[in-house]
Amino acid sequence: MKSPVTVLGLGAMGTALARAFLAAGHPTTVWNRTPGRSPELDALGAIRATTVADAIAAGPLVVVCLLVDDTVRSTLDGVDLTGRTVVNLTNSTPDQARGTAERAAAAGAQYLDGGIMAVPPMIGTPGAFIFYSGPQDVLEQHRPALEVLARPAYVGTDPGLAALYDIALLSAMYGMFGGAQHALALITSSGNPTEPFTNDFLVPWLTAMLTSLPSMARELDHGPATTADSNLSMQAAAYENLVTTAERQGVDPRLLTPMGELMQRAVDAGHGDGGLSALVGLLRTPAD
Amino acid sequence: MKSPVTVLGLGAMGTALARAFLAAGHPTTVWNRTPGRSPELDALGAIRATTVADAIAAGPLVVVCLLVDDTVRSTLDGVDLTGRTVVNLTNSTPDQARGTAERAAAAGAQYLDGGIMAVPPMIGTPGAFIFYSGPQDVLEQHRPALEVLARPAYVGTDPGLAALYDIALLSAMYGMFGGAQHALALITSSGNPTEPFTNDFLVPWLTAMLTSLPSMARELDHGPATTADSNLSMQAAAYENLVTTAERQGVDPRLLTPMGELMQRAVDAGHGDGGLSALVGLLRTPAD
Repeated sequence: MKSPVTVLGLGAMGTALARAFLAAGHPTTVWNRTPGRSPELDALGAIRATTVADAIAAGPLVVVCLLVDDTVRSTLDGVDLTGRTVVNLTNSTPDQARGTAERAAAAGAQYLDGGIMAVPPMIGTPGAFIFYSGPQDVLEQHRPALEVLARPAYVGTDPGLAALYDIALLSAMYGMFGGAQHALALITSSGNPTEPFTNDFLVPWLTAMLTSLPSMARELDHGPATTADSNLSMQAAAYENLVTTAERQGVDPRLLTPMGELMQRAVDAGHGDGGLSALVGLLRTPAD
Repeated sequence: MKSPVTVLGLGAMGTALARAFLAAGHPTTVWNRTPGRSPELDALGAIRATTVADAIAAGPLVVVCLLVDDTVRSTLDGVDLTGRTVVNLTNSTPDQARGTAERAAAAGAQYLDGGIMAVPPMIGTPGAFIFYSGPQDVLEQHRPALEVLARPAYVGTDPGLAALYDIALLSAMYGMFGGAQHALALITSSGNPTEPFTNDFLVPWLTAMLTSLPSMARELDHGPATTADSNLSMQAAAYENLVTTAERQGVDPRLLTPMGELMQRAVDAGHGDGGLSALVGLLRTPAD
């Protein structure tokens, strides 16, 4: 007999979480502010609770996946959570996660915060993982059930860390996507199609360039390497061609320019002989 | 007997090119403005020319790899190139490449422009490739020699295209690196080391996210898909958390903000139900 679980929130993600629990044989109680959401869960055996209190009474593990932090706050406001473990997978900032952790503790619950690194169709598949932060023993206690959703990746006791790691990955993703959209705009400006460029060159190139990220991290943790293949002075000078070419092709360079300015600032600050990891320090220095 | 080749310019990249030609058994004549550069080439059998004209007289294929476009212009100024094929691998913009092509034709040469997608140590290794543009038959004629340097990737007859493709990939790379530096700044702001984050999460995550680029290109070439897993309206709203978190962690959000503004502009322009590829059109629309 698998342990009973509760899922609060049946948006696309909450529904995917409930479906994964049901598929794994967990008795699953669901609640949504608007009743009757995701009717396909009924055929899979979901138990519908009409109030939040009923949903929380159904079992020790309460997974929360609501729209935003305000919804979490209003949903749990005044609810007794004694003896429950609340696992909040709602998109949050680190500050919001810490606030929810405090309120959950005050209401009698153990608390884990989580950041889901997947879109709903990936839940329950090997590619998905979830960052967790909070007391590690609480994660271990519920690991069998939580593993049903996605691989758990524990990042530390501060409940805000899962959100921080989540947001760090999303930020990196949007940097990559922004660079890719700019590249695609350049290719379309030549009148050429973008699929051959993307499949034959862009994806293999970015895949190859990813291999330089571990050495940047190593420099940050242990100090700079002795030499850089292509130092920041050379890179900052060559960057001009990227901006000029965008402008000449009628492509708005706004996604590119801040990186060029930051590299130039690094050179001006004496980091011209080093590599890109010098930018991390500048991003953490109040500027201008 | 391999065909004779000439290399103009013995910076780090020109030296690597000459070394690859010599290793493959091509009689290789080299010239550099400052004589005696890269003495290690002498032991490999390089023939040193004292003038540009002598270097060009040595064989039909002239590979040019100088510092910048101005150096190419001054080096080839007034030189007779009759019957020669000039392959210009100097970092250039598309406009600069087109100008060099015109001047080379006026001096009697066939012309190919190239963009090297490698750092010098990668020359002659399987991971390296070079974009070429210009007359395709000229590339085919010299393919055996040019393949010694790196895999040739032909992109079209307009001589500016190799530089455009080169710059598109570099732009995408800097977008990705900028996103990664921001992510690393967020992790360091928590006091945690960045190597475990990078190796266990950042590189695998970005590798997984790269798989969504082909579908963006498909939408650009063939029109939008019917559904987006996570539409632009949702993404633009969630983006606020990325900027807020950066600020709260003391990380300068300047590498992130233009992407958020662009997504919001796409939503305002009616693309809220679509995916990220809508940004490409906006980048090609004069704005503000």
